[in-house]
Amino acid sequence: MEAMPSKLLEKVVDEFSKLPGVGTQTALRFALHLLKQNRSDAAMLPAAIEQMLDGIKFCKNCHSISDTDVCQICSNPKRQTDVVCVVENIQGVMAIEHTAQYTGVYHVLGGVISPIDGIGINDLTIAQLIERVKNGGVKEVILALPTTMEGDTTNFYINKQLQNYPVNVSTLARGVAIGDNLEYADEVTLGRSIVNRVPFDSIYRK
Amino acid sequence: MEAMPSKLLEKVVDEFSKLPGVGTQTALRFALHLLKQNRSDAAMLPAAIEQMLDGIKFCKNCHSISDTDVCQICSNPKRQTDVVCVVENIQGVMAIEHTAQYTGVYHVLGGVISPIDGIGINDLTIAQLIERVKNGGVKEVILALPTTMEGDTTNFYINKQLQNYPVNVSTLARGVAIGDNLEYADEVTLGRSIVNRVPFDSIYRK
Repeated sequence: MEAMPSKLLEKVVDEFSKLPGVGTQTALRFALHLLKQNRSDAAMLPAAIEQMLDGIKFCKNCHSISDTDVCQICSNPKRQTDVVCVVENIQGVMAIEHTAQYTGVYHVLGGVISPIDGIGINDLTIAQLIERVKNGGVKEVILALPTTMEGDTTNFYINKQLQNYPVNVSTLARGVAIGDNLEYADEVTLGRSIVNRVPFDSIYRK
Repeated sequence: MEAMPSKLLEKVVDEFSKLPGVGTQTALRFALHLLKQNRSDAAMLPAAIEQMLDGIKFCKNCHSISDTDVCQICSNPKRQTDVVCVVENIQGVMAIEHTAQYTGVYHVLGGVISPIDGIGINDLTIAQLIERVKNGGVKEVILALPTTMEGDTTNFYINKQLQNYPVNVSTLARGVAIGDNLEYADEVTLGRSIVNRVPFDSIYRK
């Protein structure tokens, strides 16, 4: 990268470059974009970031991001608190909420077990999940972790930990995605789909 | 986009989305990345932006971004102040500086004439350029604007304005890029390269 004409600009470019997927050229474009705005518009980004860093909380129940001690979902009286869906992160919560098909609550693990990335059991909220189940009132735990080796490892670990408690453990259905052509489905998914085939009526029921 | 679990997060995502080329998913990734950092690391981005917005100046001579009233290049006694290279923006300055081939100074226009984008002559620093030439001490003006219709329009306009002053107006050499195969050069560039061919020695001289 060329020498920057300003140390102040250089510092902003350095900081933007730390964001995922942002290189120096993109970071420079971001910084110059802010400089082109009027002062008060440009100041909204740093102000919003600082307010978020100061104000954001993690829900006491589900460990999701929240503006309050207990998040909107956990404090919603219409949600079933006896069904807990375990997700890796907040994106998981948002993706499932987006389907508008789920009325239970969540438990955000904060990652999956991954020795390569140095993420162990104690870096996640697994103990808190067991505690929630131990305290009673949970009928079903749905494991909705990513379908990777790390996700599967975490699934197995949690499932084992829950075996001593009177709780049903389920996981997301696997199969051919809706709208997919069979020739584009990967072999493992397609293989499991044919082995674990389901009654026609169970898919097409209203 | 799914409903965000936090207004504070949503505001940051909104602000990040205003950056060029950043959609909601990328903005969310940026915001969650900041939340994963420790508090003081995450606070460096907004702090750097605010310091830049508060402190940055535009050089009185060349209108480039600067930390001081007169930029590093204009105040460098080793630079030839009688050769002025006209560029669209600060990226132009940085690109030419990167070549380490230029010892003159710059004039940053702040854009090129573009009626479609609502950019007219008075939005640019053309009057200030004419003023610099009028005040004397400028032997040569090098037009290094983009090779677009807007860039060419701006080139012609500036050239016309400078005709009454004793100053040489030059522009960047056009031709086949070094390292390019001929079959990949566009026709216009290649056509101009053959018409405006140059003595062999002028290219290969040390």
